Amino acid sequence: MIVARTRTSLHEARATLPGPVGVVPTMGALHEGHLALLRAARRRDRSVVATLFVNRTQFNDSSDYAAYPRDEAADLAAFQACGVDLVFAPSIEEMYPDGFGTRIDPGPIGADLEGARRPGHFSGVATVVAKLFNLTRPTRAYLGQKDWQQTRVIARLVEDLNLPVKLVIVPTVRAHDGLALSSRNVRLSPDQRRAATALWRGLELAASAWDDDERSPAALADLVRVTVQAQPLATIGYAEVRHALTLEQVAVADPPLVIAVAAEVGGVGLIDNVVIGEGLMEDGSL
Amino acid sequence: MIVARTRTSLHEARATLPGPVGVVPTMGALHEGHLALLRAARRRDRSVVATLFVNRTQFNDSSDYAAYPRDEAADLAAFQACGVDLVFAPSIEEMYPDGFGTRIDPGPIGADLEGARRPGHFSGVATVVAKLFNLTRPTRAYLGQKDWQQTRVIARLVEDLNLPVKLVIVPTVRAHDGLALSSRNVRLSPDQRRAATALWRGLELAASAWDDDERSPAALADLVRVTVQAQPLATIGYAEVRHALTLEQVAVADPPLVIAVAAEVGGVGLIDNVVIGEGLMEDGSL
Repeated sequence: MIVARTRTSLHEARATLPGPVGVVPTMGALHEGHLALLRAARRRDRSVVATLFVNRTQFNDSSDYAAYPRDEAADLAAFQACGVDLVFAPSIEEMYPDGFGTRIDPGPIGADLEGARRPGHFSGVATVVAKLFNLTRPTRAYLGQKDWQQTRVIARLVEDLNLPVKLVIVPTVRAHDGLALSSRNVRLSPDQRRAATALWRGLELAASAWDDDERSPAALADLVRVTVQAQPLATIGYAEVRHALTLEQVAVADPPLVIAVAAEVGGVGLIDNVVIGEGLMEDGSL
Repeated sequence: MIVARTRTSLHEARATLPGPVGVVPTMGALHEGHLALLRAARRRDRSVVATLFVNRTQFNDSSDYAAYPRDEAADLAAFQACGVDLVFAPSIEEMYPDGFGTRIDPGPIGADLEGARRPGHFSGVATVVAKLFNLTRPTRAYLGQKDWQQTRVIARLVEDLNLPVKLVIVPTVRAHDGLALSSRNVRLSPDQRRAATALWRGLELAASAWDDDERSPAALADLVRVTVQAQPLATIGYAEVRHALTLEQVAVADPPLVIAVAAEVGGVGLIDNVVIGEGLMEDGSL
C-alpha cells in the first residue's frame, strides 16, 4: 500500500494503478461503515484508492472540527487490512495552498436540511470532493447512505460539472442498538448513546407506518419527531419526508422517498435516514 | 471534422482522438483572435477540439446576450479551415439540463475589474469552463490575452480544483488601427470604432511611459484613463495597474504587471490590456 502525501506523489502512484479504480473518500476515524465502502470497492474495482483528509472547510463549527477524532496510524492499518492500494493523505497546505479562492455552491439541493443546520457545509463538501475526484480520477466513488443529502449533493456536482465518475451508494451500517455508525459516536456518554438510538427507532416507526399505507408526509415525519422528542437528552433538528433524489418537499409520500432526521445529543450532531424506493442504493439514481 | 451536439456523441468522438489534445473554447462569432488560438493548438497538439457555445450564464446583461453575434455556418467553416478535428456545439439544454444547480465562485480573483462591472460574469465563466474541460479532457487549453482577467480566473480554477490541463495564453490580435479584435466590434459604427481605438492608444502611452521608467501605478493608469476620456463617445469603466497574476493592487509598478482598461462605446463593452513581465504569454504563470 502506497501512502501519498502530496499531489505529485499521488499523481505518480495513481498512474501505476490498473483500472477500473474505486475511490473511497474519508475523513479518517474509520468505523465499520467506512469498511463497508472499502469492501464494496475492493469487490468491484481492480484498484482501490482511499483518501484521508479532515476537510476544515466543511465544518461550519470550529469546535466540531477541533473535536473530530483523529488516529492516522489506526486508519492506515485499517486501509491496509481492507486491501487498499493507495492512500492519499494530504496536508491542509497541499489541498488549500496560499491564494486558494474557489468555492463550489451546489445550489438548492444543499440549501436546507443539513445545509440549513450547517451553513457552508455542502459548499465545503462539493469543493473538496471535486478536488479529490480530479486528483484521484476514479472510475467509481463509494459513498455512505447515512449522509444521504451529501450523496445527492455529490450526484448533483458530478452531473452538473460533467465529472467522469460513477457513484455507488452503500447502505448505512448500524450498531447492535440500531445507531447509525458515525465517527462522532465516540463522543457520546452511555446515557447520551441510549438517547441517540431514538433517531433510528423513530425512522423504523415511520417506515413501518409507510408499510401500513400511511402516505401523509407530515404524519410520517411526526412519528420520527415525537420519538426523538421523547428523549430529554436529545434536541430535534428536523424530521422530514422528501423526494429521495431532489430532496424537494412532497405532497404525498410516494417513492422515491427519504425520511431524514437530525438531532443533537450532548453537543454531538447526529443524522440518519431511511430511503424508500427501488434501486436507489446501487448508484443513487433511478 | 466531427461536429458533436450532445455529451454522448462528444464522448464517443473524443475517445477516438490521439493525444495530446488541444482545446479552444469559443462562443463563436470567430475572428482572427480565435484563429490565432486554433493555429497555436494546431501547431502544438496532435488533435484539436473547438467548443462553440454562447454561454448565457456569463452574460450579466440579457440584451448583450441577445445581441451577441451568431453565425454557426461561418464558424464551422472557419474551424474546418483551421484543421479542427472535433467541434462540440451543444444546445443550452445539453449544458444546463433541468435541475442544474451548481455554481463555481472563483473568489477574489474574479471580484473586481470585470467582476465588478459584470456581476456574476466570472462565476458563469468558471462554471462553464469547468464543464467544458471535464467534457473535452484537454491536454492544453488555449485562451486569448485580451480577456486577461478571464485567463487568471481560469488559471485559479484549474489550480484550485486540480484540473489536469495546462493553459496556453495567446497574445491579443489587433486590427490595423490597434483595436483589439472582439466579436462585439461589429456592433460599432465608424465613429464609435474610431473612439474605441483610444483604449489601445492609452495602453501604448502607458507602456511607453513604463519603458521610460515611470513606476507609479496611478500615473500609468491616468495616462490610459485620460486618453479614453478624451473621446466623447467613450465612457471609461476602469483603467488599472495590477499584479499580472493575482490582480491585486500594487504600490509600485514592478513586473509582472497588467495595465487593464474597460470602456463602453455606443453601448458596447470593450476591454484591452498590456502585460509587462517575462514568460507570461506561454502558460500564464511565472
